Amino acid sequence: MKIIECIPNFSEGRDKRIVEAIAGSVARIEGVKVLDFSMDSDHNRSVLTFIGSPEATLRGAVAACDMAAGLIDMRRHSGVHPRIGAVDVVPFVPLVDANMSDAVATARRFGHIFGKKNNVPVYFYGEATLEPEKKKLADIRRGQYEGLRDKMNDPAWAPDISPDGSGFNPRLGATTVGARKPLIAFNINLNSNDIELARDIARSIRHSSGGFKHVQALGVLLESKNIAQVSMNLADYEVTSIRTVFDAVRKKADEHGVDILESELIGLIPRAALEEVTADYLKLLDFSEKRIIESHC
Amino acid sequence: MKIIECIPNFSEGRDKRIVEAIAGSVARIEGVKVLDFSMDSDHNRSVLTFIGSPEATLRGAVAACDMAAGLIDMRRHSGVHPRIGAVDVVPFVPLVDANMSDAVATARRFGHIFGKKNNVPVYFYGEATLEPEKKKLADIRRGQYEGLRDKMNDPAWAPDISPDGSGFNPRLGATTVGARKPLIAFNINLNSNDIELARDIARSIRHSSGGFKHVQALGVLLESKNIAQVSMNLADYEVTSIRTVFDAVRKKADEHGVDILESELIGLIPRAALEEVTADYLKLLDFSEKRIIESHC
Repeated sequence: MKIIECIPNFSEGRDKRIVEAIAGSVARIEGVKVLDFSMDSDHNRSVLTFIGSPEATLRGAVAACDMAAGLIDMRRHSGVHPRIGAVDVVPFVPLVDANMSDAVATARRFGHIFGKKNNVPVYFYGEATLEPEKKKLADIRRGQYEGLRDKMNDPAWAPDISPDGSGFNPRLGATTVGARKPLIAFNINLNSNDIELARDIARSIRHSSGGFKHVQALGVLLESKNIAQVSMNLADYEVTSIRTVFDAVRKKADEHGVDILESELIGLIPRAALEEVTADYLKLLDFSEKRIIESHC
Repeated sequence: MKIIECIPNFSEGRDKRIVEAIAGSVARIEGVKVLDFSMDSDHNRSVLTFIGSPEATLRGAVAACDMAAGLIDMRRHSGVHPRIGAVDVVPFVPLVDANMSDAVATARRFGHIFGKKNNVPVYFYGEATLEPEKKKLADIRRGQYEGLRDKMNDPAWAPDISPDGSGFNPRLGATTVGARKPLIAFNINLNSNDIELARDIARSIRHSSGGFKHVQALGVLLESKNIAQVSMNLADYEVTSIRTVFDAVRKKADEHGVDILESELIGLIPRAALEEVTADYLKLLDFSEKRIIESHC
């Protein structure tokens, strides 16, 4: 059976009732399995992870995002993570027996249904893009919610779906909808509140400023913990592994006499990405999944 | 369905035809799945890993060990790993739906069938022991094959099964048969041929000389590679993890200006033992199996 994953990101990470209402709306959809739900008050953002057939996943995404659109108001939103709308980004990922075209088709259907129903402008990104120059999420989100009204007036940045033709929706902003390969959202917390150090480290590792391939990185301050964080997306762990970025962040921090406090995964991770860290750390010869007892039972 | 694992160790790691004949004899048994087979010329030892129901595993063990008993002659055996017989040690491990008493029962049945059929003295060890003071494999094997004739004359070390009452079998030595929890056989190769350093490191980490709990360790020289190796068994990775011993070996080697060249697993490893290394290395918050995509599909 084809299984795809949906990982919508919502611009609400503080009000637990809202976050729980969104999660609850998906849990009620038949054929959908909710795998994870995380919220962060500094990012003021929550991330839901669920899987199912393309049909069930589409229904789950509509349920969750309709609920979020009814509860979140961007006019009152602030947080350290870049965002453009209440339902900020809705990625679809092929997991089992499904291929990228299944994820793209589901993303497009979702974009049309959600955009029209809630009067929200939609940009398609990643493999679901309609225009390659708008493919990158970071480019679509540049200027953020606060700059969206102006950006939408630029013909080059007209949304792919503009439900009522009038443009800007002050309460909901815009929504980016895409299809992509599995991505690892990985944050490293420094044992320091030096936001400039976190930004320096982010700059040194992200691809857009000359760092590792398939790595996006930002330095942010988690005010609730008074801790600086390097917040990352690893878009292809086979090219740049978790361990590579972890070691690079540790080395950079170490040069400034700062330790790594802890790290965290947002959402889920492919098993191979983890096992690679271990095999690499232990310099294991001939390691493969076959070495693991449970893979045979 | 109950599944147990059997991991017989044979005193032949050089003649590929013999090793393949042993593996082939098990592969033909219905209901048995061969997971791994490794041979090492310096240890002059091979290790077969297979699983199945207790009945199927018993038949597989008898087939493999009968074949080995027909092909290996201890009078011509030398190698760096301690051993007491041609079929040196035959452990049974409960894996799925099975408990330790299933493994013990299978071990006892195997010991009687194999010992009588091949006229080989058998010692039961681990959870299958008949006398707690003989429980430890290292104690049974002390003095090795070369000291076995004398050891068997000591009433305290009379075998648990003495098929013909006459005692010593010069061609086959004796066989230790046991039941135990999963064990991780893990070797670390130093980038050095300093056998004394490997022995020093082994002494510093093994429990019997004051090191980590549930760790057995030996320093050996792999002549074929001219490399010193720390060869280990980790009997309870939840108490002493792979990473703990790896880091301790690395630190000790580093104090002598020696790097770790590589490491290797002999046989298989429980998944949790690997993931623990990664989570620990990355200082991951709230890590569990649930974080892994594949655990939900």
